[in-house]
Amino acid sequence: MSDAPPAAAPSEAPQGEAPSKNALKKAQKEKEKAEKKAAAKARELAERTKKEAADSEDVSKDSYGELPLTGSKDFKPTGIERVSLDAVADHVDNEITFRCWVENARSQSAKLAFLNLRQNLSTIQAVIAASDKLSKQMVKFCGTVPTESTIVVTGLVKRAPEPIKSASIQDYEIHIKKLFIEVKAEVPLPLQVDDAERPLPVETAAEEEQKEEGGERPLVSLNTRLNNRTIDLRAKINQSIFVVKSGVCAIFQEFLSKKGFTLVQTPKILGAASEGGANVFELKYFDRQAYLAQSPQFYKQMLIASRFQRVMEIGPVFRAENSNTARHLTEFTGLDLEMEFQEHYHEVMGVLEDLMLFIFKELNVRYKRETDLIRSVYHVDDFKLPESGKVPRIPFTEGIKMLREAGEELNDYDDLSTPQEKHLGRLVLEKYGTDFYVLDQFPLAIRPAYTMPSPHDPKLSNSYDFFMRGQEICSGAQRIHDSELLSKQMRQHDPPIDPNGAGTKDYVDCFRYGCPPHAGGGFGLERIVQFWLGLPNIRMCSLFPRDPQRVVP
Amino acid sequence: MSDAPPAAAPSEAPQGEAPSKNALKKAQKEKEKAEKKAAAKARELAERTKKEAADSEDVSKDSYGELPLTGSKDFKPTGIERVSLDAVADHVDNEITFRCWVENARSQSAKLAFLNLRQNLSTIQAVIAASDKLSKQMVKFCGTVPTESTIVVTGLVKRAPEPIKSASIQDYEIHIKKLFIEVKAEVPLPLQVDDAERPLPVETAAEEEQKEEGGERPLVSLNTRLNNRTIDLRAKINQSIFVVKSGVCAIFQEFLSKKGFTLVQTPKILGAASEGGANVFELKYFDRQAYLAQSPQFYKQMLIASRFQRVMEIGPVFRAENSNTARHLTEFTGLDLEMEFQEHYHEVMGVLEDLMLFIFKELNVRYKRETDLIRSVYHVDDFKLPESGKVPRIPFTEGIKMLREAGEELNDYDDLSTPQEKHLGRLVLEKYGTDFYVLDQFPLAIRPAYTMPSPHDPKLSNSYDFFMRGQEICSGAQRIHDSELLSKQMRQHDPPIDPNGAGTKDYVDCFRYGCPPHAGGGFGLERIVQFWLGLPNIRMCSLFPRDPQRVVP
Repeated sequence: MSDAPPAAAPSEAPQGEAPSKNALKKAQKEKEKAEKKAAAKARELAERTKKEAADSEDVSKDSYGELPLTGSKDFKPTGIERVSLDAVADHVDNEITFRCWVENARSQSAKLAFLNLRQNLSTIQAVIAASDKLSKQMVKFCGTVPTESTIVVTGLVKRAPEPIKSASIQDYEIHIKKLFIEVKAEVPLPLQVDDAERPLPVETAAEEEQKEEGGERPLVSLNTRLNNRTIDLRAKINQSIFVVKSGVCAIFQEFLSKKGFTLVQTPKILGAASEGGANVFELKYFDRQAYLAQSPQFYKQMLIASRFQRVMEIGPVFRAENSNTARHLTEFTGLDLEMEFQEHYHEVMGVLEDLMLFIFKELNVRYKRETDLIRSVYHVDDFKLPESGKVPRIPFTEGIKMLREAGEELNDYDDLSTPQEKHLGRLVLEKYGTDFYVLDQFPLAIRPAYTMPSPHDPKLSNSYDFFMRGQEICSGAQRIHDSELLSKQMRQHDPPIDPNGAGTKDYVDCFRYGCPPHAGGGFGLERIVQFWLGLPNIRMCSLFPRDPQRVVP
Repeated sequence: MSDAPPAAAPSEAPQGEAPSKNALKKAQKEKEKAEKKAAAKARELAERTKKEAADSEDVSKDSYGELPLTGSKDFKPTGIERVSLDAVADHVDNEITFRCWVENARSQSAKLAFLNLRQNLSTIQAVIAASDKLSKQMVKFCGTVPTESTIVVTGLVKRAPEPIKSASIQDYEIHIKKLFIEVKAEVPLPLQVDDAERPLPVETAAEEEQKEEGGERPLVSLNTRLNNRTIDLRAKINQSIFVVKSGVCAIFQEFLSKKGFTLVQTPKILGAASEGGANVFELKYFDRQAYLAQSPQFYKQMLIASRFQRVMEIGPVFRAENSNTARHLTEFTGLDLEMEFQEHYHEVMGVLEDLMLFIFKELNVRYKRETDLIRSVYHVDDFKLPESGKVPRIPFTEGIKMLREAGEELNDYDDLSTPQEKHLGRLVLEKYGTDFYVLDQFPLAIRPAYTMPSPHDPKLSNSYDFFMRGQEICSGAQRIHDSELLSKQMRQHDPPIDPNGAGTKDYVDCFRYGCPPHAGGGFGLERIVQFWLGLPNIRMCSLFPRDPQRVVP
């Protein structure tokens, strides 16, 4: 409705003509109408003034509101120290100030509001009750802060009258004294963080089952989660996955540094496709063609030839494989290492085994909270390690035999399919009581051309794979360190590789000048994390996963 | 000369005709000649048999030779422990076995040979003298082992009669008892390791000067060295560079881990060019176009929006810039970090400063040997740090003023050229006594669109660069954490960026849901190493450098 004054009387007579009776009556009516409207307006104004007066009496008006953009000219730093919620127990009955974000806020009544606040993996309950010092306006403001807003709270730490089950910090609560929104979240969120905390739907299950299993709301698909990854990653389970992943990198380096490994960076842009040329991404490099490295294999060996005795690398690995499985990515993180050995490649296998045992042991110590949180969501068993501390080194032919005895049909030198690998994992768990083991002496024909043939059987090779829960996490071998033998093996390989090719010549030639015997391996970081935690999909272990269908966000 | 029996008499008469006198004389001569030859042959045979008998009497025949390929069926492991030359002092007057490689071997006489042996950065002299237990044959073998061969030596550790100046281990020498070639190096080497130990030629100097400065042999160009990188890298100076580089990574992570940073891996393959689209490598990704990440910028910020409070990344960074300078690479290692701050971006600058001071301090402790070795070759001054421990934070406008006072012509909001940066470095060193400092509050127009404008002057910004010896090693800033302001700044940027573009939308949108204020920076790892050591070219700090001209090896 318009507040504009009434227009001039609509049927105003032409100049010089006397008004008609009807016209006068109409004018009178209009006048009354205008007067009524003016009166209403006056009342409204009075009301507004009264309300404004009340507002100005808001005793809490300096204790809540929205802060100007941090760093802008309107923003004034307070210099007040902000504390971590993990230290809340040190501040009982004292006032603290902290930044956190809002899991949810709800007004219980006009005088009482509750908020669930989160800081990293910790959550705490906060409460505000109207009083002579805390206005109803402030209570209302606090009870309606949009979920996921970042806020700064000043409050009294109080022992909770009874354990607060909805929060991770159950013994304390915060009595809010001040609450400022630092950064307001828009409503609605494209994905609820609560939904991201729940397990992934089992892809094969019917929709109805999904609903039943996951509660009232249907479980949100992986695709939806990944499309909204910056919200998805806020879930505690996801934060935990990447804290564990960061931990694996740190422990990997810690162990190997102590063993004398040098951390290296090998090029990811290659002038020529190296390992056969299949599954490689092509690149435009100024005026020429280039390729993305499928592994640091050639380079880490060239570094051994360059007299780096032990090298490790943590870096991206690119595979143009059109594999749409739960354990393949087109870009993943390789944990690579290569080292000289003295007389037997089992020296290197020993280092790799000790490395992984150290990682598992330290994950159990340093990241138990995160591991337990994740495994509980997916009901995953503990990761079993050999009680003796000795990792089973099972000859490949022995693995074949175990599978045959369990009913699988396969020949001595056949490669294992993924289901067969998983089957073998169950058999090994039964027999040796461990989820971690090694297969040794793989058939030569199914390994890369640079693999050293076995001294025991020319159809086998000095190569090995490492497994977790029946799935491969590492492939490794003794490499040929003699350029003549290497050239011969490359030519005889299926498909053959030209040892004088643009992508191979520098590599083959580096073994002409006294390169010592060496072996190594490449771990898939995401796979270690996936199988350690028992997660159903490797994409969950990549911050922004890449597969044949996905290159965003 | 052929050993074939003499042919039938050349002028044999036709059948039935009597031989002439001349013919008889000739035949007689031929016969004598043949007899002489036969006698010579008999003598030769006797000689050879005698020599073979002597060989079979070689008292050392089991103490030297070439080993079969390690890991092949002819190779038999000995199980003998091999020691490190660093521990040689613990074994005086005892026999040790060790692997090493040959810097050079020379026979002084038929009875005496010397070898310079190397293991990592250590070198030691070995000697063998013929005796009743060590044959001349063995001495000859030892004196002619090809340079760069990998060998296994068993020998007695003896105190050297006087310091051996040609070796790093000067107080001890090895008296060889056994010497086996494990892996023989071909002759000649494509590059002499000795040459790789010498400084790079100064590109601008005349050839004559080069020779004078570098000794008799001309200095080998960087290109030749890089073309033969696996030999080049064997030089102690190069091994040292990469040990320092590995150390910088380790110390970087060590410091930041303790400060609560999570190590992350962000994608290198992007579905769309993000930061404007210039200088980006294009990639064929299955059926579509993709791009290589120019920095983890957008992703590390998206992780802050995902509630990772502090993230760091060590990973490759790809720049399709056609820059052929001594400090640009097309692929380098980014040391990136991003973190929430509470009230002022200087909190983050403080973390970055402390990080670098910690790295410098620890490099001086842990890698002094390598640092000194490298700097001595290039006659580089020590890296000066502020005595007060306080890193100068120089406002950009103050830097401009210092340059103007020193005669440079430039305006308040101009970007600095590389020579101007270096000039300022000298002025800062004079005034503050430090090779490490920060410029703060850069002009907004010369920074990326996501940079937070300054609260003090809308033409400035909350951004900073870190410098070492007058060259930039890190660029950083407070980032805009509000999607509206970010969109506006992107549109107003030169050139404008579409905030709804394929490469920007996910990024801009992530700031709609409560992302806290944050800042960060990206260091170039190779630059830190280059300027710390004072090296003339960044390519020396990349194992296999990539520039517009070079993608191999």
